[in-house]
Amino acid sequence: MIDIKQFQDVVVHYKTVFFDAFGVLKNHRGVIAGVEKTFEFLDAHGINYFILTNDASRSPEALAEVYQRYGIEHITADQIVSSGMLARDWLSMKVKDGTLAYLGTEQSAHYIQTAGLGTIPIKDVDLTRLEDIRGVVLLDDEGFSWTHDINKVINLLRKKNMPVILANTDVHYPVSKNDVAVAIGGIANLIEQVSGHHFIRFGKPDAQIFLFGYEKACQQKPVARNEILMVGDTLFTDIIGANKFGMDTVLVLSGNTLPEMAQIRIATTGIIPTYICENILI
Amino acid sequence: MIDIKQFQDVVVHYKTVFFDAFGVLKNHRGVIAGVEKTFEFLDAHGINYFILTNDASRSPEALAEVYQRYGIEHITADQIVSSGMLARDWLSMKVKDGTLAYLGTEQSAHYIQTAGLGTIPIKDVDLTRLEDIRGVVLLDDEGFSWTHDINKVINLLRKKNMPVILANTDVHYPVSKNDVAVAIGGIANLIEQVSGHHFIRFGKPDAQIFLFGYEKACQQKPVARNEILMVGDTLFTDIIGANKFGMDTVLVLSGNTLPEMAQIRIATTGIIPTYICENILI
Amino acid sequence: MIDIKQFQDVVVHYKTVFFDAFGVLKNHRGVIAGVEKTFEFLDAHGINYFILTNDASRSPEALAEVYQRYGIEHITADQIVSSGMLARDWLSMKVKDGTLAYLGTEQSAHYIQTAGLGTIPIKDVDLTRLEDIRGVVLLDDEGFSWTHDINKVINLLRKKNMPVILANTDVHYPVSKNDVAVAIGGIANLIEQVSGHHFIRFGKPDAQIFLFGYEKACQQKPVARNEILMVGDTLFTDIIGANKFGMDTVLVLSGNTLPEMAQIRIATTGIIPTYICENILI
Amino acid sequence: MIDIKQFQDVVVHYKTVFFDAFGVLKNHRGVIAGVEKTFEFLDAHGINYFILTNDASRSPEALAEVYQRYGIEHITADQIVSSGMLARDWLSMKVKDGTLAYLGTEQSAHYIQTAGLGTIPIKDVDLTRLEDIRGVVLLDDEGFSWTHDINKVINLLRKKNMPVILANTDVHYPVSKNDVAVAIGGIANLIEQVSGHHFIRFGKPDAQIFLFGYEKACQQKPVARNEILMVGDTLFTDIIGANKFGMDTVLVLSGNTLPEMAQIRIATTGIIPTYICENILI
Repeated sequence: MIDIKQFQDVVVHYKTVFFDAFGVLKNHRGVIAGVEKTFEFLDAHGINYFILTNDASRSPEALAEVYQRYGIEHITADQIVSSGMLARDWLSMKVKDGTLAYLGTEQSAHYIQTAGLGTIPIKDVDLTRLEDIRGVVLLDDEGFSWTHDINKVINLLRKKNMPVILANTDVHYPVSKNDVAVAIGGIANLIEQVSGHHFIRFGKPDAQIFLFGYEKACQQKPVARNEILMVGDTLFTDIIGANKFGMDTVLVLSGNTLPEMAQIRIATTGIIPTYICENILI
Repeated sequence: MIDIKQFQDVVVHYKTVFFDAFGVLKNHRGVIAGVEKTFEFLDAHGINYFILTNDASRSPEALAEVYQRYGIEHITADQIVSSGMLARDWLSMKVKDGTLAYLGTEQSAHYIQTAGLGTIPIKDVDLTRLEDIRGVVLLDDEGFSWTHDINKVINLLRKKNMPVILANTDVHYPVSKNDVAVAIGGIANLIEQVSGHHFIRFGKPDAQIFLFGYEKACQQKPVARNEILMVGDTLFTDIIGANKFGMDTVLVLSGNTLPEMAQIRIATTGIIPTYICENILI
Repeated sequence: MIDIKQFQDVVVHYKTVFFDAFGVLKNHRGVIAGVEKTFEFLDAHGINYFILTNDASRSPEALAEVYQRYGIEHITADQIVSSGMLARDWLSMKVKDGTLAYLGTEQSAHYIQTAGLGTIPIKDVDLTRLEDIRGVVLLDDEGFSWTHDINKVINLLRKKNMPVILANTDVHYPVSKNDVAVAIGGIANLIEQVSGHHFIRFGKPDAQIFLFGYEKACQQKPVARNEILMVGDTLFTDIIGANKFGMDTVLVLSGNTLPEMAQIRIATTGIIPTYICENILI
Repeated sequence: MIDIKQFQDVVVHYKTVFFDAFGVLKNHRGVIAGVEKTFEFLDAHGINYFILTNDASRSPEALAEVYQRYGIEHITADQIVSSGMLARDWLSMKVKDGTLAYLGTEQSAHYIQTAGLGTIPIKDVDLTRLEDIRGVVLLDDEGFSWTHDINKVINLLRKKNMPVILANTDVHYPVSKNDVAVAIGGIANLIEQVSGHHFIRFGKPDAQIFLFGYEKACQQKPVARNEILMVGDTLFTDIIGANKFGMDTVLVLSGNTLPEMAQIRIATTGIIPTYICENILI
């Protein structure tokens, strides 16, 4: 049994905080009322903060804007680390030129364009002319017809062997108090199973997003890994990933988890957060 | 190394033959030219035959009609065993009344209607009025919008706990010489993963479809399991399933498998057919 | 939410009952005190009963003897259906002669010997002389050195491609109030993963053990599938397997499951027993 | 189809090389004859090199000594990156004091001791006195009785919830031309499955070992990720892991892979190395 602590009492022992977005700063209604006070508190105590999010649906700028719209001026694009940025990073390093076919909204294609590469939605790919296509990027569950385009990706891979990059490993996300939707990570699992191919996957709990955030944090102020606190609502992504990377962790219950349920899950999975807090409100 | 034999030399030692449909009797262009001679041979030698197919897209009558259109009058609805029939069988035994929501074409809903139950496509279900809905049946990959209806099934299961029946476990099927499409079994895997629910699954390699075929065969002429020969093009469904049920097996290469590739797969999986034949032509 | 019923009130509506052994009739201390009254009740009401157990560690006779030692004379070898019997059945049908190598106790090799075949423990197999070895049977987690013999099976399969039969799919079993041990099904998963081979697996929840029990039941008194009640303590083996085969089911909580925990598991897995009872005592 | 190149022609375009050990520098007979020339070539061209190996069976010093015994003086402990070092790194950051229980040889416990922590082999743990035990480390498949100690780990985790660290994710390793042995990663999968716990896993293809090597390389001479070449014989560990981390890759066939087989695997998995070479000999 892990005691439930006040977030304020925990966070003061760390130099830098990483926040998951959904279930921590936001819920299905938008930014959680009162989190702006938490950021004022962090600023006042000289604690740096970043948002680590499995999201490739829009640019860091567009992600930051949501917080600013709610009056949280503290969060800028510089403090956002999205799984889409890791995909962009990989494309910059590994693909010199040509065009990437993608599943997602036009907005999500930003992560390919800013890597200096051409983009084409899967639905517009001509399967008889693939010379210029260098890979497939799976960005978002919206912006395309699942019925047509999932099958088209599978047949594209049968015609030309090329890397597939998944820019968000989440399998689902909440859309209202009770409802969820399949995320692009779930669609990727389906395509991987049917095609037999192995994709290059970016997003929590994988180490690379924590490394990316860690390097960003060190640019602002040098910090050791165990001086960083990761705050998340999901044992299988935020908590196990950050723990493995050497960070301390807070599991928050603001994602509608009952305290008893949290204790049961910790006991049955052996994924043990350093702390549990109701939420991050101060 | 398993020698390649003539089908004719193999089949004469059995009383009954079970054929897989796709890759054995049919390919993407339709019924394979010359298979009608095989059925004449079987009739002449008093060998019974049945088709065991992972298919719930249409009724046994409609499935048989395809062969008759090609002049193979020998195959009637009585000789078809489809995974859809197992789903119907289960519904008859376990669901007394009410309505089943389904994913699939209108034609595929036949398997629910002939179990004496009401049907409603997922898209027409009112999520606020679920009293009369007794379960979900996954029948076919066509006839619905994947984008809307996959998410709707997941949220339906979050609102009311009920059984989900999968009437075809295949994850993909061929649509042309080079192209495939995701089958309803692949879609079921996605829904199962996101919902966390466990579905009731019907289709090869599971024992129940072989049992169903075996009982049908015994009604026509008593036969022991090891007097039946299963003919299929897939190690993971036809061959391992029939072998486990006690039957002898033929792997055919008419599903575009090269002989060397077949030998590699047999060696690496340990799934060993009793015989290998190029095809079933005589 | 499923109400908790008295077993007596439920069972009277069925012609035949199938019991899981562990967690229902027995616990780690032996046969549960008072179950003999349940069998007197079943006899008095003309309800047939059988025990369906994932067990290949000893013969049906030896399994029945345990109950008789506790004064339950009602249970004889004829009423036992063990997964080991399915393995024997398969060997009888599919292996004509020769020797089977096995992992397990000498007692468990009974299931191979009564199929009329030779047996050799894995540790005694000469890897340079494999002509006579026709397959490997995985029977029990005891009777061999895991360190030596697990590796030896893997290397045996690299030298000669042959079928591997798993005679009990359970991955663990209880050995005291708090402790468990890895069962042969867990060891099989390890060997399968490292070797890449696919094994022929017998045991709940697979349909074949229910079919075997059903045929045995019909020999004593013809019965429809939905007139049989399966009683078990495990959703993933007893309940989903029997449900799929068309039977009604009772989940009992005598395997140390708290009622609230049972309701949570039913809600999250979608595996819904027809009834829940505390235990089978009358 | 990827052409087979000479290693010499490939490596000259990179500043730093990472070598997998087994199948590249060593085989079951020891260090491959002639690799010392490769290291002379690298030295002459000012190309740095490191060995990245899934190995926690002995210290970096002991691992380097093997090469030195074969006259390859170029390889010192400083150039070794083993998965055991990542486990040590994690323990240093996350465990302040106390004792770690372990599976492995006494030699492998080095990685715990050099983190400043106490060690106790699983077999010596008193299950009634666990206050001082802070976690379990899985190091090597040797040095313990699988039969007793695998079960003991499972029951230890049922008594006290604590982190389990896996210091080598490989599931098997070669022991002779034809034979393999189960590695500690395979044993970990078995324990994870039976216990339900999720372990903290270190080793290729996970990003953290590449990060560790990258940081080590930069300490000697700053280098960009895409100026590093990873050389390995396994698509699923060396090639996909290094590729995801942004490096170029060479698949070598010295691990007894036939060129056609390599091309088949690349086509079916979509894991595409930058180059293929027969071996690293110059």
